[in-house]
Amino acid sequence: MRFKFSLMAIGLEVVMIVLFGLFVEYDITQQVNATTPTKTDQFLQLYPLFQDVHIMIFVGFGFLMTFLKKYGFSGVGFNLFLAALGLQWGTIVQGLLHKKGKNFHIGIKEMINADFSTATVLISFGAVLGKTSPIQMLIMTILEIAVFAGNEYLVIEKFKASDTGASMTIHAFGAYFGLAVAGVLYRPGLRWEHKNEESVYHSDLFSMIGTLFLWIFWPSFNSAIAKPEENQYRAIINTYLSLVASVIMAYALSSLVERRGRLDMVHIQNATLAGGVAVGTCADMKIPLCAAMGIGSIAAIISVLGYKFLSPLLANKLMIKDTCGVHNLHGLPGVFGGLAGILALYFQMHTKSSMSRQAAALGSSIGSAVVGGLATGLILKLPFWDQPSDENCYDDSLYWKVPKVRELDPRFFQHVNHNHLEREV
Amino acid sequence: MRFKFSLMAIGLEVVMIVLFGLFVEYDITQQVNATTPTKTDQFLQLYPLFQDVHIMIFVGFGFLMTFLKKYGFSGVGFNLFLAALGLQWGTIVQGLLHKKGKNFHIGIKEMINADFSTATVLISFGAVLGKTSPIQMLIMTILEIAVFAGNEYLVIEKFKASDTGASMTIHAFGAYFGLAVAGVLYRPGLRWEHKNEESVYHSDLFSMIGTLFLWIFWPSFNSAIAKPEENQYRAIINTYLSLVASVIMAYALSSLVERRGRLDMVHIQNATLAGGVAVGTCADMKIPLCAAMGIGSIAAIISVLGYKFLSPLLANKLMIKDTCGVHNLHGLPGVFGGLAGILALYFQMHTKSSMSRQAAALGSSIGSAVVGGLATGLILKLPFWDQPSDENCYDDSLYWKVPKVRELDPRFFQHVNHNHLEREV
Amino acid sequence: MRFKFSLMAIGLEVVMIVLFGLFVEYDITQQVNATTPTKTDQFLQLYPLFQDVHIMIFVGFGFLMTFLKKYGFSGVGFNLFLAALGLQWGTIVQGLLHKKGKNFHIGIKEMINADFSTATVLISFGAVLGKTSPIQMLIMTILEIAVFAGNEYLVIEKFKASDTGASMTIHAFGAYFGLAVAGVLYRPGLRWEHKNEESVYHSDLFSMIGTLFLWIFWPSFNSAIAKPEENQYRAIINTYLSLVASVIMAYALSSLVERRGRLDMVHIQNATLAGGVAVGTCADMKIPLCAAMGIGSIAAIISVLGYKFLSPLLANKLMIKDTCGVHNLHGLPGVFGGLAGILALYFQMHTKSSMSRQAAALGSSIGSAVVGGLATGLILKLPFWDQPSDENCYDDSLYWKVPKVRELDPRFFQHVNHNHLEREV
Repeated sequence: MRFKFSLMAIGLEVVMIVLFGLFVEYDITQQVNATTPTKTDQFLQLYPLFQDVHIMIFVGFGFLMTFLKKYGFSGVGFNLFLAALGLQWGTIVQGLLHKKGKNFHIGIKEMINADFSTATVLISFGAVLGKTSPIQMLIMTILEIAVFAGNEYLVIEKFKASDTGASMTIHAFGAYFGLAVAGVLYRPGLRWEHKNEESVYHSDLFSMIGTLFLWIFWPSFNSAIAKPEENQYRAIINTYLSLVASVIMAYALSSLVERRGRLDMVHIQNATLAGGVAVGTCADMKIPLCAAMGIGSIAAIISVLGYKFLSPLLANKLMIKDTCGVHNLHGLPGVFGGLAGILALYFQMHTKSSMSRQAAALGSSIGSAVVGGLATGLILKLPFWDQPSDENCYDDSLYWKVPKVRELDPRFFQHVNHNHLEREV
Repeated sequence: MRFKFSLMAIGLEVVMIVLFGLFVEYDITQQVNATTPTKTDQFLQLYPLFQDVHIMIFVGFGFLMTFLKKYGFSGVGFNLFLAALGLQWGTIVQGLLHKKGKNFHIGIKEMINADFSTATVLISFGAVLGKTSPIQMLIMTILEIAVFAGNEYLVIEKFKASDTGASMTIHAFGAYFGLAVAGVLYRPGLRWEHKNEESVYHSDLFSMIGTLFLWIFWPSFNSAIAKPEENQYRAIINTYLSLVASVIMAYALSSLVERRGRLDMVHIQNATLAGGVAVGTCADMKIPLCAAMGIGSIAAIISVLGYKFLSPLLANKLMIKDTCGVHNLHGLPGVFGGLAGILALYFQMHTKSSMSRQAAALGSSIGSAVVGGLATGLILKLPFWDQPSDENCYDDSLYWKVPKVRELDPRFFQHVNHNHLEREV
Repeated sequence: MRFKFSLMAIGLEVVMIVLFGLFVEYDITQQVNATTPTKTDQFLQLYPLFQDVHIMIFVGFGFLMTFLKKYGFSGVGFNLFLAALGLQWGTIVQGLLHKKGKNFHIGIKEMINADFSTATVLISFGAVLGKTSPIQMLIMTILEIAVFAGNEYLVIEKFKASDTGASMTIHAFGAYFGLAVAGVLYRPGLRWEHKNEESVYHSDLFSMIGTLFLWIFWPSFNSAIAKPEENQYRAIINTYLSLVASVIMAYALSSLVERRGRLDMVHIQNATLAGGVAVGTCADMKIPLCAAMGIGSIAAIISVLGYKFLSPLLANKLMIKDTCGVHNLHGLPGVFGGLAGILALYFQMHTKSSMSRQAAALGSSIGSAVVGGLATGLILKLPFWDQPSDENCYDDSLYWKVPKVRELDPRFFQHVNHNHLEREV
């Protein structure tokens, strides 16, 4: 991959710098209103929320994808690369779409939205993890964020739909985009369990670092761009309650579906988060607190059942191999979240039109994801993107210098201690 | 554990949802005062403090308990489960106790207090780690939080004692509750070192993740519910200074008590935090800054000596096996913190009554913990909670699907690299 | 090291407590202005930024230094010890230098500045990692912070130079101080690759925890002490953009310079952060956004090339062995950042004097670092500080009780599972 990847990356970065030079400016409002406390507080007041989301993107998604025994460098490493690229490209694309005048500004809201556009890519990344080259992922990042921004613009500006926590525009979109790509790139050689497609004890613990930071900060994710005060407060509380409920249900279901009632780390690492995904659309709506908990519970059940029964079907019947099972964490709970949003509006006696706008948002999110994903997949299928051979999938050593000795010789240390004892005798 | 655990968990979650439906409401004040800046700022202003505490609960306690070589999944995994359950149950119990009208509200303070009630359970969890089944821990969570809330109500509302950082109501209480449970569940088979009761190199590093996040955010823990401005500021400074002092003393003592002056990871992982525990009660009092540092230093000394000399005694003479040594991190420093609080009031010429109220708080915290812990232990001793056999203690494979191969074959990677070389030759 | 280290640590802590008792007070302003919202908000408003920096110091630097296969306990453990010592000593030294009256106060700004002075020591720690005893590092901490505070006083109060993100006063200073120490302590026995001087797969993943938290919170580091509102906002945006650019360039260059285009974890763990270092000096200046990205890109290129070509030269020709390559992460990017600051002022048509003041700041930072480092190195060379023998370098077992068995026997678990199966048959 030597020159191809390097030169593409350098070229892209140069393009980004030029685009920022041409179109992006400091957010004047930050300076103009520097006198009125309320406005200026806003940047620093939202900054902790931004950092929470930032941690989810880089530590959360990054370590969540270190579960494979020999693909940890790529899991956390490519996540960092794709996210850094996505943040720049997302700022540009979203800025150009929403800009009024010649240029647009970058403030805390734009930084949060860039993280959101990046999240979409990282979700899709989970579906193709281990089977694609850095170049393929780089191309996917550029294409997916463009499609995402288009759909988001449609959903917010045209349909005027509500999706504060982005169950539809980020989670469902990212999942189905990734699944479409994975479907096009499907290869029979990976149909059955690959020798590298398993975890080791400590790789599962590294993955839990990702799970916990995602879980802890999900209320920030769902409330970061909510209307201040009341809505933001509700988005935090509802997400918080949905998450605690989905943890309990994920454990209960995992034990229920496994032989001898053993818990499955895959379920714990993922299904515990389903509540955060599903409550996204109606996070800031005036739903009863127990409804938020119900949404979280159902999402976790759907997610565990998806991992247990649906993923094998997808892989063997539909020829879609979903490495991280993003369909179970982001796809199904995302769609469920979109439907829950419609239901919530229904119970609040909203007009039919508002409900159908939500339905349109859900439809366009899934539709644009599938179409965009298929197109992207076809481009990635082209033979000159260095796609790894079946044998080298899920293996860092193709793209990384890996330590010659992976783990220490268990007996080594006794030996050393022994020396010390001797030295003192 | 298949059906028993699953059905109990599902049943409990349903009960929680019903209770939230019956009693809990959005915090109206968040909405009513949406116009007055000061009030509405409060939620977002305290939200970062809440998230700091949240990280301590899930990442801090969770990873701190991954030090055992074969119990890491359970350490961080059951911690997540118990915390998610405790947050819901703690909100309900504390809300019902303090509620004025028919219902009660959930705001940022209630969320912080729920984290506190959960911390108590996680401390006790450390005492029984590896020797109890998920069902037993689930029952312990429900019972302990009820007793905790009762004692806390007594301490705050009746004795009107000061315990901002909760040295007495959380740390001493949680430790002695857990020790009482461990004492009742004592079994001779675990008296001597169990073959699984040891760490490996990387499990100790995972544990340090927990230690560091607990250490960093302890000032937030001790100040989160302090009176705004002056008291909150003092609670942060005093905790910060107590912690830095206890780090230095923990290292000094660990090296002093070990053969050849080697540092013991158990001391570093735990005694460095003793300062945060001990300064809790007088965190927001007007004590000299050097007094806070003195409290931290003494707490670390007590803690290291406890690990070195007291824990073996407890296990062999008193028949109390304390897996994580919570007595040395939370018990002794917690009691010392309670006494330090009385001393602080004495030097500030407070009335005898205020000092005796503090003493009553310390007494009732320890008393209710021991009584509640003994009762809980007797219930957990009942034969139908699937307590693991001696042989299977401290072993994930009883409750978790664990990777068939735990670590990679050291030689594997050289082999792969070799292939690559060949391919290019 | 038993008594020597312990007694020195205890003695130092006692001295710290006395010094705090003599000179340090609560920050009265926190209390006086408790009525005016803006002032009192400040503490809690800056507290999240302080915690971000705090995480960088303890988790970021700590885990970044766990990459060596057998020096992880020392990497994260001594980092904690040195940081806790540095925070106290830094508060004292900086306070005494800046105090107006008899005493000085400790508020959020002082806490942030203490973290900064500590960062300098931790950077130098990276240069001597694995080759020095805890006693030597303890002495280095005391001496380096004194020199750092002197130079910082000169730069800020006398030269009135601008260095908000401290490219010069922290990064360049810390790097060249550490390199000078390493140069004096150079020993031919470590000239060539030491058998312990390598990583294993999971130690590189632990190190990535440090990299990611450093990367995420760098904008907080560069903006924490910036002037409120406009400058702080600019410092965050510029650092954020410089960092994303340096990630892309670090990956591109790493692949470009390695055989077969493989990525090198050392470059990813370090060069991705170079943008944060280099943009420090002009972080809060009115530079074009694309300039910030350019600075980040160039810094990453310099850093990777430094690791690939300069470090070997330093070790073999200049006899300076830089364990973590701090020269490539902090030294070169720090100097480049200082020069970029001068250039920025030039383009903004500033007076020659303001530019020469910047140059003086850069000069004094490097000069004081080299002189201070050489002097410190000579003191550390004295024979009675228990410097480890060549054979025992980069090895925890000299200073820590390490688990007898470092990793689990790969076959162990199959065995256990097998038992379970049998039991159920």
